[in-house]
Amino acid sequence: MQAVSPTVSLPQDPAVDATIDADRLDASLAVVGALVDECRVELAPEGLRVRAVDPASVAAVSLDLPADAFEAYSAAGETVGVDAARFAEVVGLADPGDSVRLVLDAERRRLHVLVGELAYTLGLIDPEAIRAPLDPAEMEYDCPASLTIEGRDVSRLVDAADMVSNHVRLGTEPEPAAFYVEASGDTDDVALSFAGDDLAALSPADAESLFSLDYLRELARPIPADASVAVELGTEQPVTLSFEVGGAGEATFLLSPRRTVA
Amino acid sequence: MQAVSPTVSLPQDPAVDATIDADRLDASLAVVGALVDECRVELAPEGLRVRAVDPASVAAVSLDLPADAFEAYSAAGETVGVDAARFAEVVGLADPGDSVRLVLDAERRRLHVLVGELAYTLGLIDPEAIRAPLDPAEMEYDCPASLTIEGRDVSRLVDAADMVSNHVRLGTEPEPAAFYVEASGDTDDVALSFAGDDLAALSPADAESLFSLDYLRELARPIPADASVAVELGTEQPVTLSFEVGGAGEATFLLSPRRTVA
Amino acid sequence: MQAVSPTVSLPQDPAVDATIDADRLDASLAVVGALVDECRVELAPEGLRVRAVDPASVAAVSLDLPADAFEAYSAAGETVGVDAARFAEVVGLADPGDSVRLVLDAERRRLHVLVGELAYTLGLIDPEAIRAPLDPAEMEYDCPASLTIEGRDVSRLVDAADMVSNHVRLGTEPEPAAFYVEASGDTDDVALSFAGDDLAALSPADAESLFSLDYLRELARPIPADASVAVELGTEQPVTLSFEVGGAGEATFLLSPRRTVA
Repeated sequence: MQAVSPTVSLPQDPAVDATIDADRLDASLAVVGALVDECRVELAPEGLRVRAVDPASVAAVSLDLPADAFEAYSAAGETVGVDAARFAEVVGLADPGDSVRLVLDAERRRLHVLVGELAYTLGLIDPEAIRAPLDPAEMEYDCPASLTIEGRDVSRLVDAADMVSNHVRLGTEPEPAAFYVEASGDTDDVALSFAGDDLAALSPADAESLFSLDYLRELARPIPADASVAVELGTEQPVTLSFEVGGAGEATFLLSPRRTVA
Repeated sequence: MQAVSPTVSLPQDPAVDATIDADRLDASLAVVGALVDECRVELAPEGLRVRAVDPASVAAVSLDLPADAFEAYSAAGETVGVDAARFAEVVGLADPGDSVRLVLDAERRRLHVLVGELAYTLGLIDPEAIRAPLDPAEMEYDCPASLTIEGRDVSRLVDAADMVSNHVRLGTEPEPAAFYVEASGDTDDVALSFAGDDLAALSPADAESLFSLDYLRELARPIPADASVAVELGTEQPVTLSFEVGGAGEATFLLSPRRTVA
Repeated sequence: MQAVSPTVSLPQDPAVDATIDADRLDASLAVVGALVDECRVELAPEGLRVRAVDPASVAAVSLDLPADAFEAYSAAGETVGVDAARFAEVVGLADPGDSVRLVLDAERRRLHVLVGELAYTLGLIDPEAIRAPLDPAEMEYDCPASLTIEGRDVSRLVDAADMVSNHVRLGTEPEPAAFYVEASGDTDDVALSFAGDDLAALSPADAESLFSLDYLRELARPIPADASVAVELGTEQPVTLSFEVGGAGEATFLLSPRRTVA
């Protein structure tokens, strides 16, 4: 960490002062940026927390970076509104191995992002102006099937299904136990089938739902190729994809099903 | 090879059932895709065979993948029509080292392309609806000169000539023995000259023809940089470029000359 | 070096005949190409020399490649006009480790660029038709501050400032001694501060000027990441950036300040 420039005045005794590995923060922000432009970031004593829903209310993301994922972390419990894409772009200026220090100037509504000799002052957005996350009470669903798949296979199933259609059917069946993926186009069809041996875990049920590939493509992008992705599925229910980011954070995507055409 | 999903029903006793290294098939399809979108693929007992001509009848391609280029090969002698670009895209979903299995459902006019846990069902095109390849009787030509050049030099001569013109003159001369390339622009000219020592083989003659760079650029693209390309040239005659693909297939491009402006 | 094709007729006893490592020439031409399309190249007995100014007279470049930067160099003192982008493109056809031979046909106004078996004949431009470089007498300025920074930090400061604004403030201050960079946007600000320890050299003064990022971005592009860049700064004065290119040439950019808005 460089001494900070005299041209930047940091607040004394700031509400938040946290330092984290740049790559870890970058990977975490990419998860949020897959879904929303602006988001509320909670900086609680236990760590950083984001809950966000996309403008069409089709998908939601939750991200938790616990305090011990940081090299140093001090936060009283502030909620700020940030431009997630811009925040990620600033963190992306760091070299591999660099640390990023975040200092909140609550009074002047600014987040100082300090990387080496660089001090970026990010203007904050009124959190009240940002769409509220889904009420968890509205997000109840019944997903009897679960499985664990590698991140690279999530990308692969999206790429394959994308060749023939705009939506994809995800399902499990108990006998023989398998996780399957199907997409149908005008002339061509795609099917993938993962047996129990192909997966780190598989707890199947009679479960099948249809999803938008436009969404699933965006959600797959920030999932690391070597991540273990825990998937929960039901019938005409949302799918959830949970995985670790940056070796320390926990991320979950939830994607609502499309209505199946009879 | 994964067990195939119950969601895909393969024909019993299929007319074609062949397994091949994905990279080998990919390199072969790229040769055909350089020239045409749709093509007829013959699946004869001796191997896979493609003959195709571009819509303007300026260039032709032939590709032979013998049965022993496959890990397993069984074919009775079917001819199918395929979308070459789409077929290549499916094969491109394979990881390096993967095998691709091709199973023809002749009755339902579908080719099943199986890669790991993925089953892609490719709708076939009526081969009668695809432009017939050139009749070999019409393709007689007189090419007294021959030479062997590296694939990377084919790319290089195209790149250089492309900087000044839309067409390029290819020729050989016996004394001193050389293969030469010339292109002329409004202000700039390009010339390349390869003596016998620069080439794996050179059997020169008084031979010179003019070719379209738009075509030659497309044909050069799938030629591997380290391939030995056998070239045959005449005077106002087509040029042929023959090379090995994927370590087992034989490909030949034929490109008609442009009429030389007097 | 290949024997040259009989299809290219080189002048006997040419005014210029010079051979140089292709990468070295490529890096040098990139410096000129950052600012101008066409330029005058002086081929003096001491070496190759370019002085050029951009069409808006906001920035200037000087490039010196001394005779001993060449593998062979013979020049009587010609000035030619060349299309810098095209010249760079031809040199870019060379493989790493190749040499490029330049042979001037003064009478026919052509520069032969010979790379391996390739002979490219570059049509020359009348040097009188190319905008004259700035008269050095008009380029007097007062830059009391100087410092040395790595090429990668020049790119980094441009990237960071570019996120918030179209212009950037560069300055030094004596107490505490620092080189600083500032850019202000509607919501966000960027500041970088380099103390003496962060720089290879720092001789500060009260100096600050404002520059266009559109220009600075172009100038930063050809500066090698590991180059030591000598910077001179004043107050409402041009900035100069001097660095070595291709391990042998000396390049300097000069960029005029923007008028500071009061």
